[in-house]
This record gives sequence, structure tokens and C-alpha cells, in this order.
Amino acid sequence: MGRIVMKFGGTSVADLERIRAVSALVAKEVDAGHEVAVVVSAMSGETNRLVSLVDALDADCPPGEDKCGGDIHDEYDSIVASGEQVTSGLLAIAMRRRGIRARSWLGWQIPLRTDMAHSKARIAEIESSAIGPSLADGNVAVVAGFQGISDDGRISTLGRGGSDTSAVALAIALKADRCDIYTDVDGIYTTDPRIVPEARRLNRIAFEEMLELASLGAKVLQVRSVELAMNYNLPIRVLTSMAVEGQDNPGTLVCHEDQTMEERVVSGVAYSRDEAQITLLRLSDKPGMVAKVCKAMSDANVIVDMIVQGISRSDNAANLTFTVGERDLDIALAALEAAQEEIGFKAIKHDRDVTKVSVVGIGMRSHTGVAQTMFEALAERGINIEVIATSEIKISVLIDSEYTELAVRALHNAFDLHETKAPPVTAP
Amino acid sequence: MGRIVMKFGGTSVADLERIRAVSALVAKEVDAGHEVAVVVSAMSGETNRLVSLVDALDADCPPGEDKCGGDIHDEYDSIVASGEQVTSGLLAIAMRRRGIRARSWLGWQIPLRTDMAHSKARIAEIESSAIGPSLADGNVAVVAGFQGISDDGRISTLGRGGSDTSAVALAIALKADRCDIYTDVDGIYTTDPRIVPEARRLNRIAFEEMLELASLGAKVLQVRSVELAMNYNLPIRVLTSMAVEGQDNPGTLVCHEDQTMEERVVSGVAYSRDEAQITLLRLSDKPGMVAKVCKAMSDANVIVDMIVQGISRSDNAANLTFTVGERDLDIALAALEAAQEEIGFKAIKHDRDVTKVSVVGIGMRSHTGVAQTMFEALAERGINIEVIATSEIKISVLIDSEYTELAVRALHNAFDLHETKAPPVTAP
Repeated sequence: MGRIVMKFGGTSVADLERIRAVSALVAKEVDAGHEVAVVVSAMSGETNRLVSLVDALDADCPPGEDKCGGDIHDEYDSIVASGEQVTSGLLAIAMRRRGIRARSWLGWQIPLRTDMAHSKARIAEIESSAIGPSLADGNVAVVAGFQGISDDGRISTLGRGGSDTSAVALAIALKADRCDIYTDVDGIYTTDPRIVPEARRLNRIAFEEMLELASLGAKVLQVRSVELAMNYNLPIRVLTSMAVEGQDNPGTLVCHEDQTMEERVVSGVAYSRDEAQITLLRLSDKPGMVAKVCKAMSDANVIVDMIVQGISRSDNAANLTFTVGERDLDIALAALEAAQEEIGFKAIKHDRDVTKVSVVGIGMRSHTGVAQTMFEALAERGINIEVIATSEIKISVLIDSEYTELAVRALHNAFDLHETKAPPVTAP
Repeated sequence: MGRIVMKFGGTSVADLERIRAVSALVAKEVDAGHEVAVVVSAMSGETNRLVSLVDALDADCPPGEDKCGGDIHDEYDSIVASGEQVTSGLLAIAMRRRGIRARSWLGWQIPLRTDMAHSKARIAEIESSAIGPSLADGNVAVVAGFQGISDDGRISTLGRGGSDTSAVALAIALKADRCDIYTDVDGIYTTDPRIVPEARRLNRIAFEEMLELASLGAKVLQVRSVELAMNYNLPIRVLTSMAVEGQDNPGTLVCHEDQTMEERVVSGVAYSRDEAQITLLRLSDKPGMVAKVCKAMSDANVIVDMIVQGISRSDNAANLTFTVGERDLDIALAALEAAQEEIGFKAIKHDRDVTKVSVVGIGMRSHTGVAQTMFEALAERGINIEVIATSEIKISVLIDSEYTELAVRALHNAFDLHETKAPPVTAP
């Protein structure tokens, strides 16, 4: 008996049948004597439908007058958050019709307070003084994920995948014993099984590895949810909501490194196509120039990822290459053009057709030779590397998008990820 | 220059094209120097879509266990209110893209406070301390209609058509000069033009008449919106949102009787198929018996309409016949069965296939002979009258539903409603 948070993504609540199936999974935990808070996403496809409505109107500017009436992220949030509002109410009804007391909670009702960065807000605080007693009183709390309330009393949203972060933050605020993330896959894999059919489900993975994988494009968990869980040492279990009754569904436990137990150098290969490469040509060679670029990007709310400074062979001037999320490219380019004088560069080049491929593993800390294996595997297939970035536990390369599948397969093979290196460990 | 409230129903915001058209109508008023609050309904079809999701889950009770987990109106409200949330955000974006400052306001953000009768809540108070200054500051307020917040901090809704009431109440709270209700018809007609093609648009109609027509099934305005407007003497203009550019769109002005100016005895013929007839057989003949029936209905939140007490020819016992809204019939029957001993009756009969047909007119106050004309017209067509109810300005009869069109045409003709009795009056 304890307090648990369960989170169900869009495909898990895609229609009434799925919502009923979710209510059965929740009922099982309630019957086991747990206090349960459930975090739900919008029904699959609903967020896209709403976003497409917003985008169509957003584009209604007279020619040449970009964003004529200003930012619309506040209204985007109010519109898109309605998707989770619907699902939370529906699941609350489904729970009641099983005879289980339940009520929905919207972000502003909890309240889950965020900063003012509409459409990519960050959680500032979750009030537990209303929802906590309601749980203790035997009510299932069905929480609309992805949403909160900003200081001006408007609805805010946490960005795509934000429901994971809602769930983890709620679990921390409610001092829950664990957070189970139900999704449409049965755990975290060594790589995308659509590209490498031999990819293997991991029984456990360290927070740090999951963080890198999530940052690198493995879309199972939102990056910030993993950061949060790591900071508070909250174990997350990733498992499928589609398990057949009676069938084992251990999922993957994302937990502290000491608990992972499996010995391996590389845990997984990730890739992200949502990348764009920007190169600033012939930069003025003054101190603080990179800081100015980063400030311009940060002011525009654009996250800069891989950064490389180099010397152009043709004119011996300094160039700066970095990557941003592909959907931020236009904003980034506009911000850089506006700051061209301030930063001091001659021209901008950009490329949307790039993919970041990465190998990740806690074991890289104490093993050498990973980079060499990686670069050799890519070179053997004639794949050219544009940019390299490394951290303690990962190596990322930026390559031409058309080599994506080839690169992922080559690396999965080079690090023998299809083979189990340790006996499977059962999740608790 | 003044302050106006404009309200757009579901068909007026049915898709992005219509929302853009609405933004043009709003822009016109802004350009004329007005402060404008716009109240919007959900996109046409959206409320039905959401209600059907709710209904499907609501029906998930084990056989024999009706409403096993209790009332779900609170969750219904939270789910269905999302429709207006989306439209308000979309129209705010459309306004901004015309270069006009605008923001959406949800019921809880204003706040528009209601009682706790979820799914048919009544407005208790509209706070104008936030929205008023925002308007005065030059922002268009795009208000999600139909919704408010109840004392427990949950979303409440005002019942079908509630956006009209939102608009009128907001106009009163904001001390607006007028309230324009844009809809898919170009005004109030003498009767339903689908049944009587010769039906005529009225230039003006008295609050009292509109109130009867609205109560009687003319679906252009919600009853409570008319009551409110009458109590505060706020003129409502009903006009179409589909007018062709440059074409006259006077609509119908709903206003104080003295301002109607058109002389006529009967203004319109209304009908409502959303009726069900209940008869309690062999009632115990004790004082307060009807009061007990009314209390049972009121406790179940069911509105009782026409009431007739009679003596059964067969056994000389007292019977009580009354009508309720068809969608309340099951609730009403359940409540009556539960109170059978308390009220004291032998059996219940009910009939769903009944229609209420009514003639309405301020002039009936000072003219006799209306009832005679009405009953003769129906008798000539062999239409049997089940129940009769009258007020100062209307006569209603309950008939078998299959005679609905025949009865409406007969009455429209009997009162010469296709002829203009006074020269048309132009709305201000």
C-alpha cells in the first residue's frame, strides 16, 4: 500500500475503448490499496488537430507583416490544453462507472504553477494542499497533464511530451512511492526497433543514460521528466498500456546508476532528425563572441545544442557552427540576422537535412575506445561526420539525414547491442 | 463610441473560414471606436461530439446498477466547456492577426461565478474588475460562452444555449450599450420558416413575447438570456453572421414593449417537440399533493411545465397530468417512482410523442377571441388537444407530435401572420 502516480500518453487514451482499458489498470492499483493519481495526455491526434487550427490562423498575416499582432503562445496554450481537459474528465467518468470515486484536476485547479514561457513553460511549484487530502480521502485524482497556470492567471503548457514532466513533478510533490509511465511501447530499447528489428528492451537504465537518450531523440520520455526524477531520485517505470491480461509487463525501470546492475559500455543508440545546422561565417575574432551568439539564441528562447568553432580553409576566418531544433530554425535565423551587427559576422548558412546520431552509456566513463569504434563503423560505410559533440557518457555526431538508418544499424551492430550481456533483471 | 457585447453561436464559428469572417465583423466595431467583448460558442458539432463521448462512458454501468458511481455533471461540464475554450482562443488569434489586440477569457478567469447545479448552472455574479480595465485599455475580450466557475472551484456550464445568457449577463456586468446576438438566422420569425415558408421576420419584438417564444421552443435565444435582458432593460439585437457584405442586416430588436410599435395581437407561433407528458393516476386526494409532486421534480432538478388536474371518467379518481422536457423524462419517472408512497398515487403513464404548440402576443392582453380562433383552427383540422396552458400573452396546447406541422401552419394562417400589419421599422 502506498501512493503512486500513473501516466498514460495519447495512444493509451486514444478512444473510449482505450480509456476503459486504462480505467481497468487504475482500478487494479486502487484495489491493491494504493492511493492513485493518474496523469493523462490528450487523446491521440487531438493535440495535432488543435495545433493545426492554431497554425492556420497564425499564418493569417498580411504579406510582409510577420506576426503582425504579436505572440500567440498564450492562446495556443489555452486552446491546446483543452485536449487533456477532455481526457481527464472522461477517465474520471470511467472510474466512477467502475464504482471508484474519482475527479478530474486541471492545471489551474491543483494549481500547478509555471513560469510565463507560454507553450514551453517550466513548472515552478505544485500545490498539494487540495489534491493531497483528496487522495488520502480515497479519491482517484485524474490530472490533466501538460498544463499549468502562469503568474498572470492564464493557462500554460509544458511543451510536447510535457505530460511526463507533469507526472514526475506530481509524484515528487505528492511524495509518491513511484511513477509508472504507461505508453505504447513496452520499455526503453537499445535503439528504435523500426530501424533495427533486433533492438532489445532494457530491464533497467540509469537516469543519466535515459537523460541522454531522451535528449537525443528517443521519444519515450520527455527530457525534463527524467531530469526531475534524477534530481529527486524518483524511480520511473516505463511500461506498455497495451499488455495482454495476465502477461508479464516488466517494462524498463529508470533508476539510480547503482541499481542498474547490468554491465555494459554502451546502452543505446539514439537519433534525432529534428535538427538544423547553422553556420555563422567570418566571425569577428573578439572575446565573448560565442557568448553573444548564445545570448541571442537564449533571448529568442532557442536551445543551442552542438557547437563547433572552426577556421575556414578558404579565407582563414573563424566560423561558428551549431545546431538548433528544426522547428526553432526560423526564429533562430531571424534573431541572428537582427543581431548581426552586435555579434559581428559576414553571413549565415543553414541546413535542415541533418540528423544527430548518438551512442550512450554509463560505462563510457571507465572504458576507452568507444569513439574509435564509433568513427570506424561510420567511416566503413562512407558516412561523413559534420559535427561531433561528446559528454561523459555519450558521443553524438551530426550527419546527412539520408544516412540515418545506415548509421544507426552500423552502430547498434558495432556495439553488439542485440546481445544480452547480463541475465535479465526483473523490475520490482 | 460605446461598449458593446457581440455573441456568435456555433454555426457562426463552425470552421476557420467562419472564424475569420467573425473577426472581420468584430474588427468593424473596433474600427468604429467601440470597446468590444465577444462571446463565442463551441464550433458547431463540437459540443455534440463531446457530449456523445460523455454519454458513452456514462452508460458503462453494470446491468441493474444505474449511475453506480454517482453523478457526473461536474465532469460533463469540464469536458464540454473545452469547446468554447478552443473557439475563444482561435478568435483571439484571428483578431491579433488583423493587428487588433485581443485575449481570450475563460469562465474561471473572469471569473463568472455560478451556483453548483452542474450542467445547468445559473450565473451568480460576473466580476468585471479584470475584464473591464482590459477592455478600457483597448483589448478585445474574447469570452468563452456557456461556462463559469462554481463555488468549489470546478468548471460549470449554463445548459444548452447558455452562451446567450453569458453574453447578456456580461453586457449587463460591463454596462454595455447593447448586446448583438449573431446567429445563423437573420432575426426572429413569426414561426419556423422550415414549416411555414411565408413566415415573416419581425423588426421588433417585446421582451415578454420573446420570452414566451424562447420558452416555447423557438431556439434562437436561450430563455434565461431574455429574462435577464428584460430585467435590466438591455436591448438585444438578433442578426445573422452570414450577411453578404454591404447588404442590410437589421435583424430583430428584442426590446421593451413600448418600443415595439407594431400593432398586432399575435406575434408568433412556436412549437416544441422536446416535451414528454406524465400522468399520475388515482392520486390520493389530500391537500398539498401537487406541491409534493413539484417538490419531487424540483429536487431532481426537473422543470415542470404544463399542469392539469382532472378526474378520470372510468373510476372517478383524481389524475394529475403535466409535462417535462423530454430529456428529463427518465429522471422524472425515477424520482416519481421513488416518491410514490410519499406522494400517494397508483400508477404512472407517460408519452414522449407530444408537441407543445403555442401562439404568443403582447396584444392578447387587450384582445379577446384569440383562444377561440386557435381552438377552431385546430378543430377544423381534426387535431385533438391533450392539455391547455395559458398566460397573459400566450396560449399553449399539447398535441400528438404527428400533427405538429399541420397545427403550426393552421395557426400561422388563422392569425394572418404572413401579412405585415404595420410598416417595417428599422432597427437603430
